Amino acid sequence: MIIPETHSDLLALPLLAHVATLGTQGEPQVNPVWFAWDGQYIKLTLTRHRQKYRNLERDPHIALSIVDPENQFRYLELRGVVEQVEDDHDLAFINGLAQRYIGRDYPWHRPDEQRIILYIRPLHSSMMNAGRRTSGK
Amino acid sequence: MIIPETHSDLLALPLLAHVATLGTQGEPQVNPVWFAWDGQYIKLTLTRHRQKYRNLERDPHIALSIVDPENQFRYLELRGVVEQVEDDHDLAFINGLAQRYIGRDYPWHRPDEQRIILYIRPLHSSMMNAGRRTSGK
Repeated sequence: MIIPETHSDLLALPLLAHVATLGTQGEPQVNPVWFAWDGQYIKLTLTRHRQKYRNLERDPHIALSIVDPENQFRYLELRGVVEQVEDDHDLAFINGLAQRYIGRDYPWHRPDEQRIILYIRPLHSSMMNAGRRTSGK
Repeated sequence: MIIPETHSDLLALPLLAHVATLGTQGEPQVNPVWFAWDGQYIKLTLTRHRQKYRNLERDPHIALSIVDPENQFRYLELRGVVEQVEDDHDLAFINGLAQRYIGRDYPWHRPDEQRIILYIRPLHSSMMNAGRRTSGK
């Protein structure tokens, strides 16, 4: 099983995921994002003009790192690929995320930006618990 | 200036940095680590047998993401390269890190592991403040 039961709680909480993609020269890039987990896909919000989206158009490989806020030695890393991209027409997805993370609709939307939803299929996980690392495929 | 003054405080605190490297297939990988900043280099501890070290031997490009624990919209991303690797002979570096992060010497050292210090030169930064992204070179 790719998502270990011992760490699945981290996907149910409104935590930040640090998301790594590949830049134009194939170099790693990483930054924190909101996410949702539907039991099959990790879902992220982006806009089409953002560098991270252009990165993922070139190369769909992506990795996410999520730490237990109450225990810095307990974390989950997921690696996978973007399998699907959908328009977030009515902003339902980003507003749902914002409600979960900040308790209100997303306040920074600009009408000229096209919001999209990325569907990421996890293919590999690695976990740490108190200095001990394991992995799942 | 690569490290912006507005975000340099994040390098002075014992925060986790989420570090992205490239795996054997050139795919991104990411996980949380301790770090130290000496004004010139971001310094990390590793062991020579760890996958992250093998990744960096193949490709020295690396990126780090650090979030303000009091404000999830304020973060610093650094991209750079590993410029130097040193043995941590007497464990002075990792024990200093552990003192800073958990208030005691590193408790999980195994005598059969060779601890090393990575010196990372930041070449590019990007920052976010309340939904507004900027960058520095």
